[in-house]
Amino acid sequence: MADDLTRVGLTIGDPAGVGPEIVLNVMRDAAVAAKCQLVVFGDRSVLERCAVVTNQPLNCQFLTIEQWQDPGRFPTATRVEPIVIDCQAIGAQAFVPGTVSAATGDASFRYIQHAIDSALAGTIAAVTTAPINKEALQAAGHMYPGHTEMFAQRAGGERSCMMQYSPEITCTFATVHCGYAEVPGLLSQSRVLDVIELTATALRRLREREPKLVVCGLNPHAGEHGLFGNREEERIIIPAIEAARAKGIHVEGPLPPDTAFLPWKRQTTDAFVCMYHDQGHIPVKALAFDSAVNTTLGISIVRTSVDHGTACDIAWQGKARTHSLRAALDVALKLVQTAAHV
Amino acid sequence: MADDLTRVGLTIGDPAGVGPEIVLNVMRDAAVAAKCQLVVFGDRSVLERCAVVTNQPLNCQFLTIEQWQDPGRFPTATRVEPIVIDCQAIGAQAFVPGTVSAATGDASFRYIQHAIDSALAGTIAAVTTAPINKEALQAAGHMYPGHTEMFAQRAGGERSCMMQYSPEITCTFATVHCGYAEVPGLLSQSRVLDVIELTATALRRLREREPKLVVCGLNPHAGEHGLFGNREEERIIIPAIEAARAKGIHVEGPLPPDTAFLPWKRQTTDAFVCMYHDQGHIPVKALAFDSAVNTTLGISIVRTSVDHGTACDIAWQGKARTHSLRAALDVALKLVQTAAHV
Repeated sequence: MADDLTRVGLTIGDPAGVGPEIVLNVMRDAAVAAKCQLVVFGDRSVLERCAVVTNQPLNCQFLTIEQWQDPGRFPTATRVEPIVIDCQAIGAQAFVPGTVSAATGDASFRYIQHAIDSALAGTIAAVTTAPINKEALQAAGHMYPGHTEMFAQRAGGERSCMMQYSPEITCTFATVHCGYAEVPGLLSQSRVLDVIELTATALRRLREREPKLVVCGLNPHAGEHGLFGNREEERIIIPAIEAARAKGIHVEGPLPPDTAFLPWKRQTTDAFVCMYHDQGHIPVKALAFDSAVNTTLGISIVRTSVDHGTACDIAWQGKARTHSLRAALDVALKLVQTAAHV
Repeated sequence: MADDLTRVGLTIGDPAGVGPEIVLNVMRDAAVAAKCQLVVFGDRSVLERCAVVTNQPLNCQFLTIEQWQDPGRFPTATRVEPIVIDCQAIGAQAFVPGTVSAATGDASFRYIQHAIDSALAGTIAAVTTAPINKEALQAAGHMYPGHTEMFAQRAGGERSCMMQYSPEITCTFATVHCGYAEVPGLLSQSRVLDVIELTATALRRLREREPKLVVCGLNPHAGEHGLFGNREEERIIIPAIEAARAKGIHVEGPLPPDTAFLPWKRQTTDAFVCMYHDQGHIPVKALAFDSAVNTTLGISIVRTSVDHGTACDIAWQGKARTHSLRAALDVALKLVQTAAHV
């Protein structure tokens, strides 16, 4: 039975943050074990120390990278207990929990790279990531803004976009990590259409029915027929919506960005296609502040991550909540199970 | 006793919308009457017909414009029942409730002008406005985007800004009705400082203590030390915040716009100074969708309005909720009672 279970990779994130303890928590969750076999990318010594400090059991099978990568040595027994890949990136005594350091930043980077290796090799079906600390990551010389860019670099498709998913509100983004003033220049009819299509595909898989999408305008009041802005709605967004409709996608807009997210509109909308970072991140964080799941659509790996940071102020104290990580695992599993190509 | 009561002007808005019925509702509210004497600007015949149609009593004193404007003829008796100024702008049979028309748009404009006249003359201490319909207004040749601009034109100060106030979240705006792309060019250190100061003054009056303000950045992650954007945070927003602090204002920022509105941050923040329309309107409408009060800070008249539209689909059916209008009256009264110059 267990060999039929989907294997989902799970990185422990920055060892000094809340990642190790929330990973330990989901590792011993029977509901998770019933749905997938976790393959945890981390350090054995870190997890063992964290288990003691946060008073949690640690029942798993430890493998070295070499054992994991060698099909001949990999145990074939049907077992559902989690596998921990001991990446030997950092020693448990080499850092202080709750403290940002290049050493833990480097370790968090290496866990992710091993997970991407495995996903590309097909030994895991998806990757869910615990939080990393960008400061620590960059102190170690890995100059990425976050997980999104690391995955896109190694598994990027021709077109991809960020999605923030939660039961309350789901947003996708035509632009993300750029300056406010750069946004209008980055918007094009083809980019907006790409994001509408990526969104429709993802939500079909998550909802298992044809989703209802809303596209937000760029300007206040969606430009109000040219009263505000440079007719970005008429020139770019409306043609993209019409092209998407011609492809059979159920999509409405462009709506005024402020009324798009009214409660009754949220209830009937599966996802909002947003033109810029804060247009969608403001309502997602205001409404689903720590339960949203971050994912990248259009890349060759199913990957999701928690929507919170390393929370160093409460790290290794057993206080961190696990609902965001569980939600990220659930979304990854749903995307795997409903993927046309899997 | 009654002559000591504050007189608050109340326009009935577009006669074809929900304005008349919600005005009738607050006119018969003992809690409102205990706090102020309403001076309603509308049409006698419209209110009388609406009272019949929506099955509400109408107890008030009717005055013509001439009676109201003539100190010699104005009744001096102490009475707390509302005064209705019969503006004779439209007949009760000259329009169809729920239908947009130039005639009702023109009437709504005239009620507002009479209310502004009275506020400037000092016979009312504030103006609260029921919803108007911009289409109807502009069909009548009054080319204003809304109340804000009408009040600013006749009562504008050297500096003013919009405020959206609710118990859940309050935002003020450095820019409002302009295109997305115009925002960076409209931001300056002095403008942001002005809005911080206007916000501090208003919130001191509303809270009767020193308020805690948050200023949002312009770029994603508030620019992240120059990583995103053109250093608008460093060049414009941070110097404005420092200048405000030097004046003793308790102000924090610039915060990343998406995390500024997290629930625990909202709980400890009296108001958010926003850089552009949707940065603040998105969370206000998502969180306080129909209970926010719209007001203009820095003009010579205290003026507030409901945060909803004419709702023509339910107009004159007795279904419209009055909480936004009550909230708008409460905010107007609070601003009047705590105004340094009153």
